[in-house]
Amino acid sequence: MTAGPALAQALISGDRRALAKAITLVESTRAADRVAARELLGALGPARGGTLRIGVTGVPGAGKSTLIDVLGRHAILAGHRVAVLAIDPSSRQSGGSVLGDKTRMSRLAAESSAYVRPSPTLGVLGGIAARTREVVCLCEAAGYDLIFVETVGVGQSEEQVASLVDCVLLVLLAGAGDEISSMKRGVLEAAEVIAFNKADGERFASVSNDAAALRASLSISRGPHVPPVLVVSALDGLGIPELWDTLWQRRVEAEAQGAFRERRARQRKEWFESALEEAVREAFAQRPGAALALRAAEASVLSGSSSPLEAARHVVATLLPAADASDRK
Amino acid sequence: MTAGPALAQALISGDRRALAKAITLVESTRAADRVAARELLGALGPARGGTLRIGVTGVPGAGKSTLIDVLGRHAILAGHRVAVLAIDPSSRQSGGSVLGDKTRMSRLAAESSAYVRPSPTLGVLGGIAARTREVVCLCEAAGYDLIFVETVGVGQSEEQVASLVDCVLLVLLAGAGDEISSMKRGVLEAAEVIAFNKADGERFASVSNDAAALRASLSISRGPHVPPVLVVSALDGLGIPELWDTLWQRRVEAEAQGAFRERRARQRKEWFESALEEAVREAFAQRPGAALALRAAEASVLSGSSSPLEAARHVVATLLPAADASDRK
Repeated sequence: MTAGPALAQALISGDRRALAKAITLVESTRAADRVAARELLGALGPARGGTLRIGVTGVPGAGKSTLIDVLGRHAILAGHRVAVLAIDPSSRQSGGSVLGDKTRMSRLAAESSAYVRPSPTLGVLGGIAARTREVVCLCEAAGYDLIFVETVGVGQSEEQVASLVDCVLLVLLAGAGDEISSMKRGVLEAAEVIAFNKADGERFASVSNDAAALRASLSISRGPHVPPVLVVSALDGLGIPELWDTLWQRRVEAEAQGAFRERRARQRKEWFESALEEAVREAFAQRPGAALALRAAEASVLSGSSSPLEAARHVVATLLPAADASDRK
Repeated sequence: MTAGPALAQALISGDRRALAKAITLVESTRAADRVAARELLGALGPARGGTLRIGVTGVPGAGKSTLIDVLGRHAILAGHRVAVLAIDPSSRQSGGSVLGDKTRMSRLAAESSAYVRPSPTLGVLGGIAARTREVVCLCEAAGYDLIFVETVGVGQSEEQVASLVDCVLLVLLAGAGDEISSMKRGVLEAAEVIAFNKADGERFASVSNDAAALRASLSISRGPHVPPVLVVSALDGLGIPELWDTLWQRRVEAEAQGAFRERRARQRKEWFESALEEAVREAFAQRPGAALALRAAEASVLSGSSSPLEAARHVVATLLPAADASDRK
């Protein structure tokens, strides 16, 4: 594997193979790869400014991929370079992958200014790939200034996507009134821009009615802070420039108000906190005698001779004795 | 606060006030209370056999509380002692509590063989109260052999409830076909017994039709392992003995096949693992110089001078230096 600084340089210079290699490295769970991934991310330096990260949620079938395909190509015409991270979920019970080949954004993927990449989830909380945050940084360092993070479903990962991006776009279908009312409150709360998709041809009028109804209902529940509700057809290209302008305008306004920086700073702090938890866990597992002590504790828990809480305390007290003066030097 | 062993003894002897006090202690987040809670749980000794833990899920309005009220009183007539833990959810965004007073199980709560207690959630994963597992143990030690764990919604906490109980009962309403089809796959997968509620009076026929339709659809998707689908009316008492027999029969069969013990052992292992994470986190935070080092690391992350990963590594390397020979004695 290329050493951190060399790979970082290749990636920054725009080498697509270096980016692919870097993402694979960052997503690897091997201990040696994690060390190299940290070095790489450290070598990239501070994040570039001027980028926009958009989370895209919506029920399966709402047309999220097609919309990103069209919206991404529109943004490329406006001079942007676009990366798409599609989150490939795996159900805890079935363990299967439902996304498979990422052929749905074929037109965008064929553009030289675009990079489309599915990321596996690793059984983590809420279905956001454990390393998506890091992959976003790699894409930005590689010169992509517009990053789409696509989730696969709705009702599960909104809060986590919101913690990764600057703006959450919720894609809905007309006639989904029941669906919306049965959505968990968090889904609509997290949406910062809403697009009713598939207003294709004759369907435009009925989709517009649904959008108007949602606007009215949101203005009751959310008062003056109603998110923009747009009507688009990814198929016909209808409403795409307006949607893009809305998304970009939000960024400009957030930047002017300081909200943009604040949100990114908060996200950086959350990233640090989760990295810290992981580092502490690893350091603990590497203490001398850890494997043996853990096996013994588990056995005593399963036999019922100690409570899980006592056993956990005991292991920690053995492996991480309260620091004394000699620890501080 | 009563010392661990004394409180444990009062609780085991069936003192309701001791149980209430113990639950409050276990749910407290104060560090001193956590120490006392661990002592208390340790003093209770191994879990009693012969108990049954039932998780109850279903959309708000499905009548979960009323059903538990009726089912619990039926079980009391059969000689059981019943504890109900209702999980009071708080949305991460709104922070509010939606359950409020637990007056809905008033008849059950008035029984001398019943104990009804709402538990707050503490912003934890999936809406299961962080300490529900521990509260279940307290109730069993206090002599309650039938424990209901009631969730408030559906689609959020099934997997976690399943990891706490012996059997998950899903409560549905007739006419909820759309609702069922839009439920996340995990919800139906986790259901081990399904009850259509509110088959009151004339509604019996239509509710039975819905139950038959669900049975047919499940036998397609799940083959021979279709969970029992029952029709009940908590209001009229219809189907309650059958539901109770079904639940108890499942326990008897699981016990005979060894599945009951296996599931409890797996849950005990998961409990140990989460207790271990918590203990490691606490021990780390208590290292000398931890607060200072964390503040410095956070500042360097926010200023952009180090990446979150590097900063986390650096803090851990400082506070938990790789153990050398002297650590092992």
